[in-house]
Amino acid sequence: MLKRRKTKKIKIGNLYLGGNAPVVIQSMCNTDTRDVKATVAQIKQLQKAGCELVRLAVPDLVAAKAIAKIKKRVSIPLVADIHFSAELAMEAMRSGIDKLRINPGNIGDEEKIKMVVLEAKKRKIPIRIGVNGGSLEKDILKKYKGKVTAKAMVESAMRHIKILEKYNFRNIVISMKASDVERTVEAYRLLSAKVDYPLHIGVTEAGTIFRGTVLSSIGLGILLHGGIGDTLRVSLTADPVEEIRVAWEICKALGLRKRGITITSCPTCGRTEIDLIALAKKVESELAFIDKDMHVAVMGCVVNGPGEAREADLAIVGGKGVGLIMKKGEILRKVNEKDLLKEFVKEVKKF
Amino acid sequence: MLKRRKTKKIKIGNLYLGGNAPVVIQSMCNTDTRDVKATVAQIKQLQKAGCELVRLAVPDLVAAKAIAKIKKRVSIPLVADIHFSAELAMEAMRSGIDKLRINPGNIGDEEKIKMVVLEAKKRKIPIRIGVNGGSLEKDILKKYKGKVTAKAMVESAMRHIKILEKYNFRNIVISMKASDVERTVEAYRLLSAKVDYPLHIGVTEAGTIFRGTVLSSIGLGILLHGGIGDTLRVSLTADPVEEIRVAWEICKALGLRKRGITITSCPTCGRTEIDLIALAKKVESELAFIDKDMHVAVMGCVVNGPGEAREADLAIVGGKGVGLIMKKGEILRKVNEKDLLKEFVKEVKKF
Repeated sequence: MLKRRKTKKIKIGNLYLGGNAPVVIQSMCNTDTRDVKATVAQIKQLQKAGCELVRLAVPDLVAAKAIAKIKKRVSIPLVADIHFSAELAMEAMRSGIDKLRINPGNIGDEEKIKMVVLEAKKRKIPIRIGVNGGSLEKDILKKYKGKVTAKAMVESAMRHIKILEKYNFRNIVISMKASDVERTVEAYRLLSAKVDYPLHIGVTEAGTIFRGTVLSSIGLGILLHGGIGDTLRVSLTADPVEEIRVAWEICKALGLRKRGITITSCPTCGRTEIDLIALAKKVESELAFIDKDMHVAVMGCVVNGPGEAREADLAIVGGKGVGLIMKKGEILRKVNEKDLLKEFVKEVKKF
Repeated sequence: MLKRRKTKKIKIGNLYLGGNAPVVIQSMCNTDTRDVKATVAQIKQLQKAGCELVRLAVPDLVAAKAIAKIKKRVSIPLVADIHFSAELAMEAMRSGIDKLRINPGNIGDEEKIKMVVLEAKKRKIPIRIGVNGGSLEKDILKKYKGKVTAKAMVESAMRHIKILEKYNFRNIVISMKASDVERTVEAYRLLSAKVDYPLHIGVTEAGTIFRGTVLSSIGLGILLHGGIGDTLRVSLTADPVEEIRVAWEICKALGLRKRGITITSCPTCGRTEIDLIALAKKVESELAFIDKDMHVAVMGCVVNGPGEAREADLAIVGGKGVGLIMKKGEILRKVNEKDLLKEFVKEVKKF
């Protein structure tokens, strides 16, 4: 098991974040928050895919008020994404939001900051400070000669943290996202050496499904493997359900979360004598909705097949027109290629 | 720039690996090597996709002899993947193979080992020792109580290395693949502290395109970000061309290689007022074949848009039914949503 950095534990609705809580998987709706029906439908889709916390854009008062209606119809905690406005933050809290994503340094004068922070404190609503490489404060940007460096991002985060701490507010989560791996990783490493607040990790503007999956897997993978990260959001220019799928796969790959069946399969080569690519795809889709904590392997040949099969609960090892079904490394039986999928799925269900 | 571990530089055909050479991107044909036509076609496809080194399965003498015919028709170096057979290694070398992937400890007695190693030395053919979690030596497996640990894999690698070093053979590349991230990373970290031979990195049996992309991005990402890895193979149960696509994306994400246009795009949210998912996809496919070293951003709104645009050569920042085209952070012009793609691609070509 990976050793995770020890962070402060906070509570968002009925969900724990940080401390010894599992890494929380979250996403953000891309619906218009004022459209309650569409937003509720997307939250439910996300929840079904495994999302545990959902953020909503709150660009105006209508959206802030809509939160109350949305809250009544969903069961997972919600985060209001607010920029520059103390009034919207107040309204979101009155509407029952579970967490705010707001940068206290840019919502107005001391009076306004105090109003928001004390209200959040009273209601036990955590605040996420979200530093983004694309929107650093002008004076910090100037100090770093116009370069959005990891240090500049950490300086921005620390400034917002100090504002909250001045009011003894410590119910804090922090994110610092850049659009590339290198700066994102460096910024989180620097900050995690300074504070013990839980960290929301992500690579921002990561791109389309393909590029975004690779970028997020690398960036979040490096951080999580190094013990950093209490909640994650994969950012894709795609249906947010895809973000959840990738987020789970990252957590599963690092042994941080468990969900469904893990499938190992080989890349096929000149030694493969069955149609393994098609078979692995079919096994993946047949097993997608079986909720068992087990490990199966789909292997093309006898060179690495038996070894992998030994480490799997159930495995297929392909031969010429046939396949062996193996259980914990022992041969169960030999099956013709055409019956292999059906028979294997049967064994998985029986397991 | 990432700091890479200093390794010995070796030569494979006309390609350098290790030392200060760029990270080499490789894959493996899944054609029958005896089928010269199909294999040559796949090598050419792989090369077009950006593959720099291709491995072929050599399960028998016919395949070993076919290498000579294949070599005549392709221009990138080839690696013969051989298991347990000194004879096949000898025949592959006579056929002009550029590199062997063979584990000297399992090709027979001292006589046979000597024959293969001296022949490779004479011909200046490098040998990759390929330790695989699925096929560890029985005595090592026994020593580690049947557990394929990272230490067990390193012990296996060191055993093969010592066999080659006994003959003063140092033209070596090493890989140690497990089917999970944790062991793979640990094994490479342990070995790279012991030897300075270039390392071939990969997560083996990573699975279907989706799972394999995530697993390889995390595993190879962690290693490369830590300076480890001189060549990489992404292992997917899919067309090997997909492996090359993922491998390039990993290297680009870490700034290790450059190829084509980098596209940053935001995840869309309730603030987005244009159809950004569709637009980003179209921009990605329109720019896929433009070979320019530039960075473009496709952003949905004015919160993070202008900041990202400042870091991009060219950017789209979406508004309501319109988009701004920006160059190095300065507004070039405002364009209606329906003309945005066409006008943007025009600007990219002009850049």
